Amino acid sequence: MHELLIKNFGKYVSLTADEINKIPAFFVHKKVPRKKLLLEEGSVCQGDYFVIKGCLRQYETDAEGRENVVQFALEDWWISDLYSMFTNTPSVYNIDALEDAEVLFISHANQEALFREIPVMNIYWRIIMQHAFVALQRRVLFLQKPLEERYHDFLQRYAYFEQRIPQHQIASYLGITRESLSRIRGAVLKNK
Amino acid sequence: MHELLIKNFGKYVSLTADEINKIPAFFVHKKVPRKKLLLEEGSVCQGDYFVIKGCLRQYETDAEGRENVVQFALEDWWISDLYSMFTNTPSVYNIDALEDAEVLFISHANQEALFREIPVMNIYWRIIMQHAFVALQRRVLFLQKPLEERYHDFLQRYAYFEQRIPQHQIASYLGITRESLSRIRGAVLKNK
Repeated sequence: MHELLIKNFGKYVSLTADEINKIPAFFVHKKVPRKKLLLEEGSVCQGDYFVIKGCLRQYETDAEGRENVVQFALEDWWISDLYSMFTNTPSVYNIDALEDAEVLFISHANQEALFREIPVMNIYWRIIMQHAFVALQRRVLFLQKPLEERYHDFLQRYAYFEQRIPQHQIASYLGITRESLSRIRGAVLKNK
Repeated sequence: MHELLIKNFGKYVSLTADEINKIPAFFVHKKVPRKKLLLEEGSVCQGDYFVIKGCLRQYETDAEGRENVVQFALEDWWISDLYSMFTNTPSVYNIDALEDAEVLFISHANQEALFREIPVMNIYWRIIMQHAFVALQRRVLFLQKPLEERYHDFLQRYAYFEQRIPQHQIASYLGITRESLSRIRGAVLKNK
């Protein structure tokens, strides 16, 4: 059950057999049926989720009741509201499952314990935090771009999302209407 | 010259005397006269700056030629375009000095060498990356708030900036005009 996680760690750090054996104790395996909320707006995010099956999304609900997607997470990805977790403040986000999913959950406290027990995990999480920072900054720059450019960027980076995630969810992530997305997709397909 | 930096490390990790002696070799001391650019839009950010004297700012120039401040850094703070540094892509930001300043600069390559030479630095930078992530997320949420709220948030968190940084720079950081800032400040002072 932890193979994908251990493999992910192995991309960035070297773990001994002894360390690998210790890891599962820090995580809780959770099944997440489609539409189930893992995090609800207004509550404090308790830890970090590593996706081993299915697709999760993180979104906020705006004043008009629209759901604005800020992140998708497929297998081998982390998802969490790190801001809420680190500052211990209520989240402005929801996290739910777009498909039946399975995650490995590590609480904030267990993460701190993991750093003490397996120090090389500090290297891993330093790198993961660098990635999270870059992804957030990319998102800020991304939303300042014209619609067409956003879609091209998205396709370049996340073409495989197109197969897994409904069009209206992608439109929400891109910050555009479903109609605009259809129009832009049409133009892209025509130019191929 | 490195006392402030060593003290800053000491807030988060314990260093041996031997490790402390090794640290200066990884940094370059730079004097930065007022208005001098440390990073220029279009070039790749080469590393991270720790301020030991003065005040730096990070800003972008928009299509209308306006300078939009995204961060100030006073003594004991880090400043850099981490996105540009980690992705090795041209920066959209400038970093310059608002006052005559002094910094300790660590190049990206030297930072990687520091992690190998003094592994506990991975803990320090994991925590610094968490702070950087939280600060960036806070900025995203901040710019979605009404003007008055932004100024109140700013005062709560950064009241000491008011003494050091010109009003038009603060207005730029808050994403409001100088006139709006004057109006809001007037209302705040009247209510005191």
